Amino acid sequence: MKRLGTFYLQDMRAFLSREIISVNGVISKPGETSISVMDRGFLYGDSVYEVTLTYNRIPFLLDEHLDRLYRSAKSIYMDFSFTREELVSEIFKVVEAIEGDRLYIRIIVTRGEGEINLDPAAAKSNNLVIIGRQLPEYPKSWYEEGVTLIVSDVLRNSKRSIDPGVKSGNYLNNVLAMAEAKEKGAFDAMMLNYKGNITEGTTSNIWIVEGDHFITPPLDAGLLGGITRKSLLLLASKNGLNVSEENITPERLKKADECFLTSSTKEIVPIVKVDDSLIGSGKPGPKTQKLHQIYKQFVLDSIS
Amino acid sequence: MKRLGTFYLQDMRAFLSREIISVNGVISKPGETSISVMDRGFLYGDSVYEVTLTYNRIPFLLDEHLDRLYRSAKSIYMDFSFTREELVSEIFKVVEAIEGDRLYIRIIVTRGEGEINLDPAAAKSNNLVIIGRQLPEYPKSWYEEGVTLIVSDVLRNSKRSIDPGVKSGNYLNNVLAMAEAKEKGAFDAMMLNYKGNITEGTTSNIWIVEGDHFITPPLDAGLLGGITRKSLLLLASKNGLNVSEENITPERLKKADECFLTSSTKEIVPIVKVDDSLIGSGKPGPKTQKLHQIYKQFVLDSIS
Repeated sequence: MKRLGTFYLQDMRAFLSREIISVNGVISKPGETSISVMDRGFLYGDSVYEVTLTYNRIPFLLDEHLDRLYRSAKSIYMDFSFTREELVSEIFKVVEAIEGDRLYIRIIVTRGEGEINLDPAAAKSNNLVIIGRQLPEYPKSWYEEGVTLIVSDVLRNSKRSIDPGVKSGNYLNNVLAMAEAKEKGAFDAMMLNYKGNITEGTTSNIWIVEGDHFITPPLDAGLLGGITRKSLLLLASKNGLNVSEENITPERLKKADECFLTSSTKEIVPIVKVDDSLIGSGKPGPKTQKLHQIYKQFVLDSIS
Repeated sequence: MKRLGTFYLQDMRAFLSREIISVNGVISKPGETSISVMDRGFLYGDSVYEVTLTYNRIPFLLDEHLDRLYRSAKSIYMDFSFTREELVSEIFKVVEAIEGDRLYIRIIVTRGEGEINLDPAAAKSNNLVIIGRQLPEYPKSWYEEGVTLIVSDVLRNSKRSIDPGVKSGNYLNNVLAMAEAKEKGAFDAMMLNYKGNITEGTTSNIWIVEGDHFITPPLDAGLLGGITRKSLLLLASKNGLNVSEENITPERLKKADECFLTSSTKEIVPIVKVDDSLIGSGKPGPKTQKLHQIYKQFVLDSIS
């Protein structure tokens, strides 16, 4: 791994901060951290990334996130010029350099710098960027009152062009859907695939409840296999809940009893309105709240 | 425009170089130039760009390129925090700071920095990056012997997801197609749309010749409207050549008499083989060479 800085405990204290960014092992404060404009992440979005949240200062399900990071990289033929052990060590250095229990950790690996040429072989060696920051609690209203989503006119990238299962630096597709949501006063957008089925939110997975049945779209609808999504599929089964992966059209979704989104940082957020349609009673549903309780207990059990 | 540096002639001489990068008006050498890792161009590929070539130190068809830059920005709801006059002035400062007649000029405008949030409103103010460098003549063999392309398995992004007509920082789609080309020992790849028609090369437009008929795919096939492509459509008509925009399947292309690609930096490059099929005689065709002569004359007339 290139340019890995040496970072001593005594230096670290001076840095204690609410936000820290590490570039190839050199830790600095935001505003002092930069990357070459020749980096392919900047030029082409030629990068992969992960976001995890710490509970009690422990990056949650880090192994799962790193497994996905490696899968994303493999999908775009990107090798890493550092070991997984070095990567984990750099992540923990960032965590150690910030105060607070609840930290947002973003891990970005780019293909690196090189001649301006789309050929991946033009890249020399990865750049590794880790952004760590205190994450304030999200507004209680999201969880207690629920949020509104739209069904975006922007279709999710097709698996045959850029697989949405790859968490890459190409996020303009989702930026455009989010822009449409904000234009319409919504919290977020859900995106359809070319068959008209729901794929995912711009940074979350989507679920519905029909009776006592929890349903989320299958991976082959063209979506990112969320870590929280995966945990919930297992947890729901384990807790005797009726759960399955099925294609969901917007029409079906709008008739569901409950609806919610899941993400590593937001956990479970009830969706109470989609476009102009209230979902169920228009208030967060009991099944959504029950699943969130199960998830919270899972987090507690995992970190204790 | 923020952080626009003042750049005097006397400073400029010290910089005279083969490569210069300007970030928000501050000119420096490569290796000294960087951008915040919080820039949305880096995080999401949330940027637009143009590439032009200088002839006799004059950025060729700059107005056309800037028109397209503004169209790209508008398509992704990006405003510029500087005027077109300021932009042109910064481009010429970069040109003035490099020696040589034949310069590659890349103009990148990102949505800027801000909170980590897909919402474009999170961005504060654009970052403007201009990369200028001497561009050595391309190998004569490209023009005299022609090049080999493949038809990529990676489909070009759909207009309903990210319009290929927008020249943005989301280029992973093309990077994957180029990786496939290099894996197969080819010069480049051409990409199909979802209907199976040819759209474009990874950084070029594609043309065929059938008899005395020049044909290139229409914009609605989902491709970037190349500046050279547009010039050639006009020039061909003006010179009494038979030219049209039509959908082209790979099967049709492989039966064509001639085939070539066009780009602002490469001008016209004959394609003599696609996958395992020789095109025509397997050598650069006379009609391709005639059109290139017409284009070269157009360049000469334009800059004199």
